Amino acid sequence: MWVSGFVILFKDGIIMKENLIKAAMGEIDADLILKGAEVYDVFTGETRRADVAVKDGIICGVGEYSGANEVDVSGKYILPGFIDAHMHIESSMVTPAEYAKAALAHGVTTVIADPHEIANVCGRAGLKFMKENAALAPLDIKFMLPSCVPCAPFDHSGAEFDAADTKELAPDFFGIAEMMNYPGVISCDSEVLGKLVDGKIIDGHAPMLTGRELDAYVCAGIKTEHECTTPEELREKLGKGMYVMLREGTLSKNLDALLAGVTSRNSRFCLFCTDDRFIGEVLKDGSIDLCVQKAVEGGTDIRDAINMATVNAAVCYGLKAGAVAPSYRADLVVCDDIVPKNIRMVYKDGKLVARDGKAVFDIKPAQICAEVMNTVHLDPVTAEFFAHEPSAEFTAIELIPDTIVTKKVRAKRGDKLSKVCVIERHKRTGNKGFAYVTNYGITNGAVASSIGHDSHNVIVIGDNDRDMAAAVNALGADGGIAVCSRGAVKARLTLEIAGLMSAKTAEDVTAAHEELYKTAADVGVNKGIEPFLSLAFLPLPVIPEIRVTDSGLFDVEKFEFI
Amino acid sequence: MWVSGFVILFKDGIIMKENLIKAAMGEIDADLILKGAEVYDVFTGETRRADVAVKDGIICGVGEYSGANEVDVSGKYILPGFIDAHMHIESSMVTPAEYAKAALAHGVTTVIADPHEIANVCGRAGLKFMKENAALAPLDIKFMLPSCVPCAPFDHSGAEFDAADTKELAPDFFGIAEMMNYPGVISCDSEVLGKLVDGKIIDGHAPMLTGRELDAYVCAGIKTEHECTTPEELREKLGKGMYVMLREGTLSKNLDALLAGVTSRNSRFCLFCTDDRFIGEVLKDGSIDLCVQKAVEGGTDIRDAINMATVNAAVCYGLKAGAVAPSYRADLVVCDDIVPKNIRMVYKDGKLVARDGKAVFDIKPAQICAEVMNTVHLDPVTAEFFAHEPSAEFTAIELIPDTIVTKKVRAKRGDKLSKVCVIERHKRTGNKGFAYVTNYGITNGAVASSIGHDSHNVIVIGDNDRDMAAAVNALGADGGIAVCSRGAVKARLTLEIAGLMSAKTAEDVTAAHEELYKTAADVGVNKGIEPFLSLAFLPLPVIPEIRVTDSGLFDVEKFEFI
Repeated sequence: MWVSGFVILFKDGIIMKENLIKAAMGEIDADLILKGAEVYDVFTGETRRADVAVKDGIICGVGEYSGANEVDVSGKYILPGFIDAHMHIESSMVTPAEYAKAALAHGVTTVIADPHEIANVCGRAGLKFMKENAALAPLDIKFMLPSCVPCAPFDHSGAEFDAADTKELAPDFFGIAEMMNYPGVISCDSEVLGKLVDGKIIDGHAPMLTGRELDAYVCAGIKTEHECTTPEELREKLGKGMYVMLREGTLSKNLDALLAGVTSRNSRFCLFCTDDRFIGEVLKDGSIDLCVQKAVEGGTDIRDAINMATVNAAVCYGLKAGAVAPSYRADLVVCDDIVPKNIRMVYKDGKLVARDGKAVFDIKPAQICAEVMNTVHLDPVTAEFFAHEPSAEFTAIELIPDTIVTKKVRAKRGDKLSKVCVIERHKRTGNKGFAYVTNYGITNGAVASSIGHDSHNVIVIGDNDRDMAAAVNALGADGGIAVCSRGAVKARLTLEIAGLMSAKTAEDVTAAHEELYKTAADVGVNKGIEPFLSLAFLPLPVIPEIRVTDSGLFDVEKFEFI
Repeated sequence: MWVSGFVILFKDGIIMKENLIKAAMGEIDADLILKGAEVYDVFTGETRRADVAVKDGIICGVGEYSGANEVDVSGKYILPGFIDAHMHIESSMVTPAEYAKAALAHGVTTVIADPHEIANVCGRAGLKFMKENAALAPLDIKFMLPSCVPCAPFDHSGAEFDAADTKELAPDFFGIAEMMNYPGVISCDSEVLGKLVDGKIIDGHAPMLTGRELDAYVCAGIKTEHECTTPEELREKLGKGMYVMLREGTLSKNLDALLAGVTSRNSRFCLFCTDDRFIGEVLKDGSIDLCVQKAVEGGTDIRDAINMATVNAAVCYGLKAGAVAPSYRADLVVCDDIVPKNIRMVYKDGKLVARDGKAVFDIKPAQICAEVMNTVHLDPVTAEFFAHEPSAEFTAIELIPDTIVTKKVRAKRGDKLSKVCVIERHKRTGNKGFAYVTNYGITNGAVASSIGHDSHNVIVIGDNDRDMAAAVNALGADGGIAVCSRGAVKARLTLEIAGLMSAKTAEDVTAAHEELYKTAADVGVNKGIEPFLSLAFLPLPVIPEIRVTDSGLFDVEKFEFI
C-alpha cells in the first residue's frame, strides 16, 4: 500500500466513527481545516462560506471549525474531487501510479477503471499488475472486472475469461466492466449472461442500440452507457433508466454533441468519462476538469456540470465521495473560481496531493512482473508477408474524423487506399487479416502498433509492404508504436508493459508520443484523422460499422465476417 | 407468502433475465401489456405515449408492444408506484395486510416500515408477527430493524434490543430504523454506535439538530431525516448530504411548511413519508398520492413531486422500483391525469391489485400469535390511584396544534390544566408519572390509551380522577383507546394486537375511531388539538421540548428528568 498517511483507519470494516464524531463536536482536533473558502454543496447547488474539517481522511464537518492544522483558503472555491466514471488506464500509455499523478493534478480523485486492455493481453497477471501498481499512488482507482476477454467470441486475444472465471474473480472487483457483447446479451447467450454477476454494478456499451433491443439489453441489469453519440440516443437511454456518460476521450469526443440533450432535470443521471485518453492530453488539457469547463462553455449550468463530475457518479456507483459533506471522503479541489480552470490544490483523503497543476507526492519505483513484459510474440517479417491485393471491387473501411465509428464503403482496385494488416501476436498462430482504408492518407510509409483494441494484436497500416514490414519489426518483443518511411524507423514509442504501457514518466511518454505525431504528419497521414487511435480501434469488432481483425474484415451490424 | 401470482421467479438469487430479454425482444409473450397510455419517465421528466410490457412481475419494455394479454389504457397516465419512505404501520391501527389494501388503493406500492411500536411492546415476537402478516398481501413492505427499543435508555418498554441484539437481527432486515437517540450518537455512547451496523442503510431522527451536532450525527453514517419542520432545517440537512422527507402524517403535517425550502434542484434528495397516519385518513384522503397532490397545489412542479414520491426514494434506498423502465418492478399507477387524483388502476408486480380506489385482492384471515395479545398488564385502578397535586408553581406541557412538538411552560396551581398520568403496563412495576398539560381542554371526562410512544405504557388524561380510573379500566388486557365521562365509557376502540392494532378491517376501525372523535369533542377537547395522537406522543422523550413518562416529567433539550 501507499504511504500510511493515506490509509484510513478501519476496524472490523467499520470506519472509526468515534473519531469523526468527536472531531465534529470539537472534542478532539481535526487533522486539517481548510478555512474560509466558498464551499460548493452538490445537494442544494448552493455555495456557502465555510470551513471544511477533516479527520482520518474523512470530512467530519462543514461550518465553523478551528484547530491546530489550519490552511487559509479564503477567496478560493472548494469543490468535491472529480470522478471519471469510466476509463481504461492502459489507453493513457502510462502505469496506474503514473496516471494518478496527472489525474490528481487535475482534481480527479476517483476513477472507475476497466483494465480490459491488459486483461486481453496478459489475463489475470495483467489484473494483478494493475492493482498492485495502483496501490502505489493515492488516486482511488475502482477496478471493474473486464467482461469481454476477448471482446467477441471469435477474436484472438492473449487470454480468455469465461462466465466461470468471471464469477470466481468478481468478488475482488468493484463491478463488472462494460458488457460490449450486446448481441450476446440480447440473444441470451448463456456464457454472456453468466458474466452479469448478480449484485454487482454492470457497466454497458451498446452504441446506437435502440427500441426493443435496448429494452432487452437493459433487462439484463446493465446500468450505464458511455457510447452515446447523439442527443436523441442520450435521451432514449436515460429514459430507459441508464446512467449516461458524456465522453471526452482522445479520439471519441462526444461531450459537445451530447450537451444538446442534457437538461437540468435529466442531468442527475448524466456523468462524465474519458474512456480512452492519452496521458499527454491529460497533462496538457485535463480530464474531468476539462469536461466541466467544456460543459459550461457549451451552456450547461455550472451546478449541473459539477454534479455530473461528482455526486451523480457517486450515486450511480454507491461511493461515499463526490460531495463536501460530513462522512464523505475528504477529496477536495481548491480552485480560484467555481469553474475548475485554475486548480490550486487537490486533497485526496485529506492529504495534499497536488498544487498548481503538479502532483506533490512521489511514487516508489514500480515492480513490473515478468508476466506483463515481452508480450509481442512475433518473428521478424519481410515485405512478402504483406503480399495481398484486393478484388476488382471490394468493401473498404472509411475513417471518420473525431470518432472511432467507421463507415462501410465500396471501392475499386486502383483507388488510393491504405493497406492494413492485423497480425496475431499472442500465441504465434500465424493468423493475419487484411483490409483497405480510405481517408488515412499515408504515403511512402507505414505505422505499426501493438495497441489494437481489444485483443491488441499487432496492426500495421501503410502504402507499401516494405515499410509495413519495417514498422512491425521495429516493435520487437516490447511492442509500442513505430513509424517507418522508406525502410527506416522515423519514430518509436516503446510500450514494454503488455505492449500497451510504458514504465516511464508521463512527460517522457508524451515527448516520444509527440515525436510520433510529427513523423505521422511527415508521411502524410490526413490532418483530420488521429493517426494512432484510429488505427488502434480498427480491430474492435463491437464498434460500428466495419472492422478488421486477424481473421479479416468484420461487419459489426451483421456481426459476421465479410 | 401471498398468492403465487405475486411471486417473482428467482433462481440462485438472480432474477430470470432470460425471460425478460426474450419478452422484450418479442420472442415470447409478455404477461401483460398496458397499451397506449401517456407514460411518465422519472429520469427525463418527459411523458410519452407508449405501451408498457411486463414479464414475471418486472417491466421488460416500454415502447411498442403487443401480445395476448393487452389492457387498453389509452387516454390514461401511467406513473410508477409510490414509495412511502418512512412509516409505522402500527400507527394506522390495523394489521400490515389490512394496511396494504388501503395503501395499494392509493398507488403506494412500497413502504419503508419501522415496526418499533410493536417491538417496544413485544420484542422479537412483535417483529415476527409483522413480517408474517405483511406476507399475506402484495404491498412491498421493507422492514427496518428498530434501533431504539426502548427509545431512550431510561424508558420502560416491554422489550429491549441492545447493540448485540441489533447486530444479530440486522441481516434479516432492510436497514436500521430511525436512530432517535441523537444525544447518544453525538456523545459516542458505545451501545448506540454499536447499533449503527456497517453496510446497512440507517434512517435518522434528529429534530432541530443543527451545526456541529448535526455534522457529528451525520458522521455516524445516518442517511435520512424525516423530522424537519422548517425550510431552513430542510436546507441545512440536505446540505449535509441527508435525504430529507416531507412528512404528512396525521398529527405531524410538515409538507406545506417544508415546500418553501424545496427547489427543482434540491428536490432529488427529497422524499415523502407519512410516518404516523391513521388508517381512516389513508382511506379518506390518501397517502403518498396526497403528498403529490398537495405539493403540486403548493406550487411544486408535478415532475419534482412525482419524483419525490418515486425514484428519489428508490435511489436513496437502492430499490429497483419507482420508475416505468425496463428491469424495474412492474409497480404501476394508472390515473386520469398526471396528478394522481383519480387513480383508476394499481398494478403491483404486474398484477392488478386495486381499481377505482378499492383493493381487488383478498387476504387470508391472519394468524395472530398469543405473544402479541393481552399485552396490557395492569390491575384495575381506583380514583385514588391518581391522587396527585402540583406545587404552587410548576413546569407544565403546552400542546401545539398540528405538531407533536411541545412547549415547556410555567404554570400556577389553580390554572385550568389537564392531569396526565403514564402508567407502566408491561411488567407490573407499578411505575407511574404525572404531568399537567395546557391547551387540551377536557371537562368532566378522561381519555386513556395504550398507545404512548414509544414504550406504549398506558397514558390517561382528564380533569377528574374518577373518569381517569374508569378510562384506564376500560382498556382491559387488550388495550386500545377509551373515552369516559361522569364514570361511564362513552366510546371505545379495542386494539388487541399489542395494544396498538386491531385485527378488524380498516373500515371497522375507522368507524370506531370516528366515534371516539365525537365523544372527545363532547368532553370538550380543544378543536385544534388531535385528542389521541397529541396524547400518544406525550411520553416520547426524543421529541422537543418536554415529555412525560412513567418516571415523570422529562426535559428533552437537557435530556434529563425535571
